[in-house]
Amino acid sequence: MTSRARTSYSLREITERFGGKVDGDAAVTVRQVATLDSATPDTIAFFANERYLTQLKSTRAGAVIVGASVRAATSIPRIVCANPYAYFAQVSALFNPALAARPGVHASAVVDSSARIAGDAEVGPCAVVERAAVVGPGSVIGAGCFIGDGAVIGSATRLHPNVTICHDCVIGNRVILHSGVVIGADGFGIALDEGRWTKVPQIGRVVVGDDVEMGANTTVDRGALDDTVIEDGVKLDNQIQVAHNVRIGAHTAIAACVGIAGSTKVGRNCRIGGASGISGHLDIADNVEISAFTLVTKSISSAGTYTGVYPFERNDEWRRNAVQLKHLGELAQRVRAIEKKPAQPKRRKP
Amino acid sequence: MTSRARTSYSLREITERFGGKVDGDAAVTVRQVATLDSATPDTIAFFANERYLTQLKSTRAGAVIVGASVRAATSIPRIVCANPYAYFAQVSALFNPALAARPGVHASAVVDSSARIAGDAEVGPCAVVERAAVVGPGSVIGAGCFIGDGAVIGSATRLHPNVTICHDCVIGNRVILHSGVVIGADGFGIALDEGRWTKVPQIGRVVVGDDVEMGANTTVDRGALDDTVIEDGVKLDNQIQVAHNVRIGAHTAIAACVGIAGSTKVGRNCRIGGASGISGHLDIADNVEISAFTLVTKSISSAGTYTGVYPFERNDEWRRNAVQLKHLGELAQRVRAIEKKPAQPKRRKP
Amino acid sequence: MTSRARTSYSLREITERFGGKVDGDAAVTVRQVATLDSATPDTIAFFANERYLTQLKSTRAGAVIVGASVRAATSIPRIVCANPYAYFAQVSALFNPALAARPGVHASAVVDSSARIAGDAEVGPCAVVERAAVVGPGSVIGAGCFIGDGAVIGSATRLHPNVTICHDCVIGNRVILHSGVVIGADGFGIALDEGRWTKVPQIGRVVVGDDVEMGANTTVDRGALDDTVIEDGVKLDNQIQVAHNVRIGAHTAIAACVGIAGSTKVGRNCRIGGASGISGHLDIADNVEISAFTLVTKSISSAGTYTGVYPFERNDEWRRNAVQLKHLGELAQRVRAIEKKPAQPKRRKP
Repeated sequence: MTSRARTSYSLREITERFGGKVDGDAAVTVRQVATLDSATPDTIAFFANERYLTQLKSTRAGAVIVGASVRAATSIPRIVCANPYAYFAQVSALFNPALAARPGVHASAVVDSSARIAGDAEVGPCAVVERAAVVGPGSVIGAGCFIGDGAVIGSATRLHPNVTICHDCVIGNRVILHSGVVIGADGFGIALDEGRWTKVPQIGRVVVGDDVEMGANTTVDRGALDDTVIEDGVKLDNQIQVAHNVRIGAHTAIAACVGIAGSTKVGRNCRIGGASGISGHLDIADNVEISAFTLVTKSISSAGTYTGVYPFERNDEWRRNAVQLKHLGELAQRVRAIEKKPAQPKRRKP
Repeated sequence: MTSRARTSYSLREITERFGGKVDGDAAVTVRQVATLDSATPDTIAFFANERYLTQLKSTRAGAVIVGASVRAATSIPRIVCANPYAYFAQVSALFNPALAARPGVHASAVVDSSARIAGDAEVGPCAVVERAAVVGPGSVIGAGCFIGDGAVIGSATRLHPNVTICHDCVIGNRVILHSGVVIGADGFGIALDEGRWTKVPQIGRVVVGDDVEMGANTTVDRGALDDTVIEDGVKLDNQIQVAHNVRIGAHTAIAACVGIAGSTKVGRNCRIGGASGISGHLDIADNVEISAFTLVTKSISSAGTYTGVYPFERNDEWRRNAVQLKHLGELAQRVRAIEKKPAQPKRRKP
Repeated sequence: MTSRARTSYSLREITERFGGKVDGDAAVTVRQVATLDSATPDTIAFFANERYLTQLKSTRAGAVIVGASVRAATSIPRIVCANPYAYFAQVSALFNPALAARPGVHASAVVDSSARIAGDAEVGPCAVVERAAVVGPGSVIGAGCFIGDGAVIGSATRLHPNVTICHDCVIGNRVILHSGVVIGADGFGIALDEGRWTKVPQIGRVVVGDDVEMGANTTVDRGALDDTVIEDGVKLDNQIQVAHNVRIGAHTAIAACVGIAGSTKVGRNCRIGGASGISGHLDIADNVEISAFTLVTKSISSAGTYTGVYPFERNDEWRRNAVQLKHLGELAQRVRAIEKKPAQPKRRKP
């Protein structure tokens, strides 16, 4: 574990900042957060999932963050609150604040004279900032990043090393883009003309709202004509592909390896499971949850959870079952035929 | 929308260049392309999909590109042609030409003295070109790109920033590689030897033909012994993985997030849907279409569309149905047993 | 094919190094390895798969590596050994040794004064090595790589160009990381708080063992609190996503495009097929094989092969069959109803 802890806090100080109530000795101080398993007496852990009850019983943590329903499950000094995991996130951010920008442009960076870099922004080694690009106050452009012509980076935004922002794209405030992210590459616009593909110029932008985070190697393509839009508070994990003219609604969270095809609109506060996909030109309502490994091929107009994944089993069993899938239409017909058979067709004979 | 429009053209001038016939006032001039929805009177839109008929009726576009069958559906000045989307692609390229190379090697680029860079080629900031590499006339090596020993880049080819071309690979003419593309990393060649993996050197190359485009973060591995080959006119979307010794036939288009395993040959003019996969050592015929999210596990010898995706539904319904998949072999047997039952097995009793 | 062959070897010399037995003229010399198909008389090929018997019959290779069971299938001089493919890997490495480091830090690299670079290590052009980072003996940091604060790179390890290692991560000895790899980006830790997501600081590291290889654009996230761990000898193909706090057991091999969700433990000597997935918080036993395109949603406690993939077929047939999946629960009930029907319900009437 890396150690960036700045100081220690008592449970009383913590609850004064973030609310909640202390059960036990409020003068206990902690210096860092930890898991129940690896906690030491100078750290604070959290308990938000019943499956870790054994770990709660045996933890060496100096304090623990719990919900009201389990406050009696341990005698360790504890902070009781409504949402232990969210509370823990705040406590962890207290001990592990995001690094601040180190103002200045590194000598090895290449910044066009027409670019505007805020005085307290940081531009790292070997970064490249092209013509008329803008980097806002307190933002960090990591080593090796590329900011294309006319692109705009908001304030307090961090681009980790080796991020690419193509020309004219707009990134909001307090955004975090992890290494390998590519924003604004051309969408996959090709027109078939007598067996050959003609490129369709991609002249839209990508517009990313505030408080968005994108994981390593995620890609968001620029719009074909209008823009691709990622609204405020959207959280994208690693290796996600967002095609041209997609719009992702505010506060939607998408797990790794998902692909969203062109012009699809995803609602607000959706949760999309890993390696799932959404076909193009669809509308997905707010508060929809898509299971991992599911391909959504039609628009979804009401909230709820949607799934389409083949259950795994031992290969020999899978073989025995899956082979029947190619006869399923026929099997259904045969059952129908049995059902339709007259009950006593040949009774009258003798 | 970014604006790179250079000038305006009348409908007459456009049809003189690209063919087609004007219905209405051929003197109308436009300055840019747009969607039906966001078009303004100085732009030209296109109509190629019946689902957008409402938008056609209400568009503010100054002109529109349509097929013959719908020429009467609007009174806006219009260009009537056989293939409105391909025509539109040409018109858009007229208004939005690809940027030309800015000849010269940037002072921060690192180019080996044995590399040969065409006089009118562009090598961007912090790009690295290694020994004996070649960059052809009019080509652009974007900022932060890496061109390995002996690699050859053709003419009029554009590598967007942060592309990696490994040693000895060959890239054709008029190729476009978007940011994060990696060409010629080692294929996944490992031999099991008493529970441990031994690396098999990957000594083939990647050879990319002319007029190929690859999207952001797509990877094409070098061959193990012989080469991996991407033929002319192939279009690859983002985050595609092409394994060693694959050959992709000319003018095949592949949507994002597809994986093609080693030594598979894909035919010409195929279309492969997003997030699908093709297993290794297979042959896929020309003109094959693979649906999104489909794994192809056997060679395909005839043109057509092939699919293998689990349909999605509400999670509760999926649960009820999917649980039966593990009993499908047994269910088929039970139906067979019912069918085989003698019609009146116990009739003779009384 | 690239040519890095250093010299030629006789079959006698090769078997003196690697064992095995020569059938035929042991004085025959070869200069390079090749496939059966493209071999020339100065190269040695291998035969490890019965499907290539035709190629064995017609090969022009000067020599061939075969198993004992097929030694009589050709009259070409041959090395007979227990494991032809692993033997071939060794012979290929003899002819195609990995490039050695070219000691020194390139003038364009940016290395913090507190970083420690071994004297015989290589740091390529435009690479960035941050504070207190360590690069071990004989290791190569390729062009454009980023090594974050406090990261440690072992000895004889090679980072190909444009690899990103985030702060405090640890990479072992003899590791190979291909271009575009990102190690130690933040895991996807977010806590929901009244409809908005709060970031959970990711303060663990990634610890990568010895003899690990990772393919292009693969990502391994740092742990949330404890570390993400890749054990010795693990081989990861391209575009794989390993989430925070995953542990992958020694000598496990994973094909391209796989995603492994958070906190899952994968055993030793597993083989995981391309584009498969493993859900979070699971335990996968040693020696488990997962088929391509399979989502593992439950822990697996015993060795074996596990599969869950929808078989592909012609689209029209798929449509006819797949539509029944949404009625499968009902179909099973109907079969049960038929089975339960009294055999002669109305017999007694007359």
